Amino acid sequence: MTAVHEADRLARLVLSRLAEPGDAEICLAVAASDASDVLRKLLAGEDGQQQKKKDLTERMRAADPELDLEKARRQDARFVIPGDDEWPPRLVDLTFGPEKDRRGGPPLGLWVRGSGSLADLTERSVSIVGARAASAYGEFVAADLAADCADAGFTVISGGAYGIDAAAHRGALGLRRPTIAVLAGGVDMFYPPRNTDLLKLVAKEGLIVSEAAPGCAPSKSRFLSRNRLIAALPSGIVVVEAAIRSGSLNTARWARDLGRPVMGVPGPVTSAVSAGVHQLLRQPETLLVTDGAEVVEQLSPIGQGLAPVKSGPVLPWDSLDPRTKQVLEAVPKLRAASPQAIARTAGLPSDEVNTRLRMLPELVQQTDEGWRLRET
Amino acid sequence: MTAVHEADRLARLVLSRLAEPGDAEICLAVAASDASDVLRKLLAGEDGQQQKKKDLTERMRAADPELDLEKARRQDARFVIPGDDEWPPRLVDLTFGPEKDRRGGPPLGLWVRGSGSLADLTERSVSIVGARAASAYGEFVAADLAADCADAGFTVISGGAYGIDAAAHRGALGLRRPTIAVLAGGVDMFYPPRNTDLLKLVAKEGLIVSEAAPGCAPSKSRFLSRNRLIAALPSGIVVVEAAIRSGSLNTARWARDLGRPVMGVPGPVTSAVSAGVHQLLRQPETLLVTDGAEVVEQLSPIGQGLAPVKSGPVLPWDSLDPRTKQVLEAVPKLRAASPQAIARTAGLPSDEVNTRLRMLPELVQQTDEGWRLRET
Repeated sequence: MTAVHEADRLARLVLSRLAEPGDAEICLAVAASDASDVLRKLLAGEDGQQQKKKDLTERMRAADPELDLEKARRQDARFVIPGDDEWPPRLVDLTFGPEKDRRGGPPLGLWVRGSGSLADLTERSVSIVGARAASAYGEFVAADLAADCADAGFTVISGGAYGIDAAAHRGALGLRRPTIAVLAGGVDMFYPPRNTDLLKLVAKEGLIVSEAAPGCAPSKSRFLSRNRLIAALPSGIVVVEAAIRSGSLNTARWARDLGRPVMGVPGPVTSAVSAGVHQLLRQPETLLVTDGAEVVEQLSPIGQGLAPVKSGPVLPWDSLDPRTKQVLEAVPKLRAASPQAIARTAGLPSDEVNTRLRMLPELVQQTDEGWRLRET
Repeated sequence: MTAVHEADRLARLVLSRLAEPGDAEICLAVAASDASDVLRKLLAGEDGQQQKKKDLTERMRAADPELDLEKARRQDARFVIPGDDEWPPRLVDLTFGPEKDRRGGPPLGLWVRGSGSLADLTERSVSIVGARAASAYGEFVAADLAADCADAGFTVISGGAYGIDAAAHRGALGLRRPTIAVLAGGVDMFYPPRNTDLLKLVAKEGLIVSEAAPGCAPSKSRFLSRNRLIAALPSGIVVVEAAIRSGSLNTARWARDLGRPVMGVPGPVTSAVSAGVHQLLRQPETLLVTDGAEVVEQLSPIGQGLAPVKSGPVLPWDSLDPRTKQVLEAVPKLRAASPQAIARTAGLPSDEVNTRLRMLPELVQQTDEGWRLRET
């Protein structure tokens, strides 16, 4: 790593301490020029940055990049930036993402905790997200879907929250496959509290990722910024359960705007936690999926990873030719009928009816009164 | 009614006795020329009709159009043909429908039982179809959907079967709105047996319709021919529950090929009777619907019959400006924090933080140690 690259890392680190995660103005300025230059202008209040400088006074006082790195080291965490081997190439899409949202732009860097490479683990990956207040059905489906995707070699990404997120992480961990939790707070701030054990396991088997510096608490706006990473990192995204005003729908919108395939799992229309997914599925760009195989198919190159065709049982009836079917349909179940009566019902000549009936000894029986279906 | 028109009716009646419902060859020949001419050629075995003539020998022997009309009259039924006031104009689409299926073409005529006009009642109508072995969930949703569509002035069309069909008819009848049952057998052959009372009520409040002559039993192939009418008659179609190899999917394919809007109601992915609907909903031309309002919107002219936008509750939070939200997010819940600490967390100047906090007496409280959120 060159000295220039390390200077860039330090400048990005300081900036990430000053700016909120996903501060579009700063993220896009850095992507377009140079972190050291953006930092210098911000500290000097140049280029119309006076208000921003004023806003960030208290943060500047407290900024201590060396302390951040030290804290991170103690957590086995690192600050990954563009140019590093493990920087996920897909994040470049955020440079051209929708600017209408003030939370935009590629992250200045990502704090990563865990031993795997973020680039390798996200190369084939799927975000599985959904309601915190999920139903038992939703959690079951999320875990099942995650296990199938993980088994097919896709890393499961989610937000580490209760409900669908936790079920998705667990589905992958159950097969001892790596999974990635992207958090709104620092990688040392396991949130929510009751998921601490789960997140420890994620850190051990996979990765904990955050745009926020160590020590930062998760806040409402950081959850929204975080959502864009859950949308940008994977090959595609699946929403399992989501109420009408759900953060998962925000993530899905980000994914759609970034050109990621968006999938949704349906549920009963009587379930409020499926209503948001159904709203999503009414949009033509969202694909309904019912199992992991369909997710894998959607995220694989054309002609690869095809889901098995769902089909019912093949019945003996299916193999009969049309005219034989026509005869058989005309044979009564209870009382026997004459070949003439059957011929009339079938709309076929009576000699042909007779011939065809004789070829079906397992299905029909002849009595003194004529033909009838055998009992099955 | 002219003598020519009545001669046409008689010829169509005889032909409908000879040919199976939906016999594409005969239906399309009649649509392209003239029923009397097609009948004459068939009886004479002209124009390559020798095999057909032979096939139909037994039926020709038994054909008795006067008896059919007499039977129908006794049931208050009539044989409606193109040119009659109540012939549904939409059926013309079957003339240009897919010919790959041997069950095609516009019906030669329709036996109609009930007092309303078939054309009037189908003008704004929706077919609601689905599994016979429906779940309680499916039946509930079908009845609810049917009631909402009926209440919005749409006639509910279905097939009179157990499960979803029956629930759909009942949903409309519960509001004393007309509903139409399209049967595979004759209009005098109420099938299935346990739906006899329901079908009597349908006949009283709405219409019983069939392409098959009175006395004809329902058969497998007649169900398939019947499905094309359930697809062709309405403004659009909704599939509520359907297993993978379901007749309802056949009806939906007909509807799609005829250009009718196809809708599907999702269910749990763990339910086998929703699997067919989900398969359908994975096709881009199928719209997911969760209630009657969405069905009505889809079947109404653009800009009319719009479903109410589904939205969550509006929270006090929503009305705050972004910088105030930023401040509020930084205020701790338990221990109070100084304006400087809050300013650092918020990334805003401490004097601005103080000012904004003073404007939110209902949300935050000031203590000796600083500010904290009020308990809610």
